Amino acid sequence: VFAVTWDVSTASKGGYDHFMLKEIHEQPQTIRDTLRGRVSDTNQVMFPELKLSREQLLNFNRIVIVACGTAYHAGMVAKHFYEALLRRPVEVSVASEFRYSDPIVDQHTLAIIISQSGETADTLAALREAKVKGATTLAVVNVVGSSIARESDEVIYTYAGPEISVASTKAYTTQLIALYLVGLYIAEQENRLGPTVVAGYVELLKALPAQVAQVLKLGPEIKELAQGLSKSSSFFFLGRGFDYAVAMEAALKLKEVSYIHAEAYAAGEMKHGPLALVEPGVTVVCFATQSALYDKMLSNVKEITARDGGAVALVKDGDEGLDTRSVDSVLRIPSTHDWFMPILAIVPMQMLAYYIAAALGREIDQPRNLAKSVTVE
Amino acid sequence: VFAVTWDVSTASKGGYDHFMLKEIHEQPQTIRDTLRGRVSDTNQVMFPELKLSREQLLNFNRIVIVACGTAYHAGMVAKHFYEALLRRPVEVSVASEFRYSDPIVDQHTLAIIISQSGETADTLAALREAKVKGATTLAVVNVVGSSIARESDEVIYTYAGPEISVASTKAYTTQLIALYLVGLYIAEQENRLGPTVVAGYVELLKALPAQVAQVLKLGPEIKELAQGLSKSSSFFFLGRGFDYAVAMEAALKLKEVSYIHAEAYAAGEMKHGPLALVEPGVTVVCFATQSALYDKMLSNVKEITARDGGAVALVKDGDEGLDTRSVDSVLRIPSTHDWFMPILAIVPMQMLAYYIAAALGREIDQPRNLAKSVTVE
Repeated sequence: VFAVTWDVSTASKGGYDHFMLKEIHEQPQTIRDTLRGRVSDTNQVMFPELKLSREQLLNFNRIVIVACGTAYHAGMVAKHFYEALLRRPVEVSVASEFRYSDPIVDQHTLAIIISQSGETADTLAALREAKVKGATTLAVVNVVGSSIARESDEVIYTYAGPEISVASTKAYTTQLIALYLVGLYIAEQENRLGPTVVAGYVELLKALPAQVAQVLKLGPEIKELAQGLSKSSSFFFLGRGFDYAVAMEAALKLKEVSYIHAEAYAAGEMKHGPLALVEPGVTVVCFATQSALYDKMLSNVKEITARDGGAVALVKDGDEGLDTRSVDSVLRIPSTHDWFMPILAIVPMQMLAYYIAAALGREIDQPRNLAKSVTVE
Repeated sequence: VFAVTWDVSTASKGGYDHFMLKEIHEQPQTIRDTLRGRVSDTNQVMFPELKLSREQLLNFNRIVIVACGTAYHAGMVAKHFYEALLRRPVEVSVASEFRYSDPIVDQHTLAIIISQSGETADTLAALREAKVKGATTLAVVNVVGSSIARESDEVIYTYAGPEISVASTKAYTTQLIALYLVGLYIAEQENRLGPTVVAGYVELLKALPAQVAQVLKLGPEIKELAQGLSKSSSFFFLGRGFDYAVAMEAALKLKEVSYIHAEAYAAGEMKHGPLALVEPGVTVVCFATQSALYDKMLSNVKEITARDGGAVALVKDGDEGLDTRSVDSVLRIPSTHDWFMPILAIVPMQMLAYYIAAALGREIDQPRNLAKSVTVE
């Protein structure tokens, strides 16, 4: 007879040291689950749960997206996607600001509300405010039957499964998948995109789980990189367009679990002030996954290296503009359409945040001062 | 005969150690100069330089504000003001993002372009992009005859005079004054506000120079406070609504001249991540100048002090909710309408940034890595 030092909590981590790492690795599956039932055999987008008619969709002249924290950052990606695809102004609002701002919302507004738990207090209040003002509300929620799911006119569930880590990872990527699908669905309903074009995009979405699995193989490389970077005094995450939206989430992730001050900037804004902070010891992660903005990002990278800031570049496989002659480290990820790069770009950043926090011995799954679901205002 | 150690550069600083401090102190005068000629004896707003007709104004269903750095933050304040006053969606865009985003702008868009120098490369490109797409452009510029002033359909000059310090102070407050006046002008033209109501607001604007002069008397108190705060490892600046917009500018100012990592947050977002960073040594400046949001801010202040973060509160004279029993320091400023509080709230923050930088021996007027007018992309 011998004692087994093994408990339910460890078991449910599936062999990983923390829930956060386990949940990062679940993403190929949770993305697949969120796509399932929403794409047809002919690669068209189906949302049997949506009651919105084509007429209702065409009636919306404006989309507002309301959320908090990580879900807000998912909304930032959706803004870029929807403005490109649906050619309507999209405003992303922090729920705690939206609800008290007498927001400009009416019956021509589609309000998309994003919340993992479906119980975020400020987001729920924002949903109610939008409804009172006449908006049609569409919630993207993970927890079935939650308050936001129940009160919203329309609801689309993500299938991330239970997320235990306070720092959200798989909820974010499944929110993105749901938001991409909604955009394609509306574009299709409005005849903005023909079936063949939609099918092409859906094909790319369906390829993402395998591509995320490939990104996860960067784990050992990122773990080693994190050892050195954990000594950084500060981080900046820079990008343009979609990359800036992902940079915001990358910075939040690092803040939450490592307690290092990390901030995202639209890369073009650095020279308007923050560049003054760049010196040895400050690490700047530069996202360069957007083809049309690539050359501009290269210039921004040079601004950093010229000031001896530590530079890490995140690029697509096959990128020849950035290597270890120009920056300290390069992370290479698989390539897809620029619109969908955020899914592939955030995963190495989740791992980077995790391994830096691990190197610093932080309480990764339960960062100090934070709670998983923020049901207070 | 004796040698005079006195040169032109010192002389033009008017006895101040740095241009930044001189320019901070010029604000009562530059605000007065920017109001002059724009308000009538009966306290109505006049813009003889504007050619926009009432019909043109009513044709705009949307306002986009495009700028970089400090001017972008002036735009954030204007967004809150215009949405409240003109009841149209207002989007504030970073120029380097706007120009590459195929922005949704058409002949029903009023594009307000803000630039101190009138030569900011990204902002100029954004102006051209907006014009090509059919928007009417209105520039708020300090330098007469600059490229942006020349190319814009309409131009309103601020009268800040030459700004030498790289970190902008008087340009920002005069931009705010110009933007407030434009909002009141449009509201008046559209019959949204009657003459009596407009006169009431103008009266408040005219009181600002004397109120700013009163705020400047906080100098010695802020200088002493800065000695201690200069040892902080990180700063957060928190606010809600207009206070959040000012907090963004306060954080940038501190970054630019002190090189300390400082970040602004919508106060309600702290519990969605950044609260993990709050510990002794981290200073959190809490803006509580907005009446309707005051109680919510009090809760946010408690989140900080409960985690032993250093808390500085910025409140209106007569505030009884926050004192040195609840926070480490309180800065009290005169009171005006909540809309106009940003002018009074930013001045102590400019002084705080200055004195912290001075305590750290920084190159205040010429921060490393930065240039005054960013004419490269």
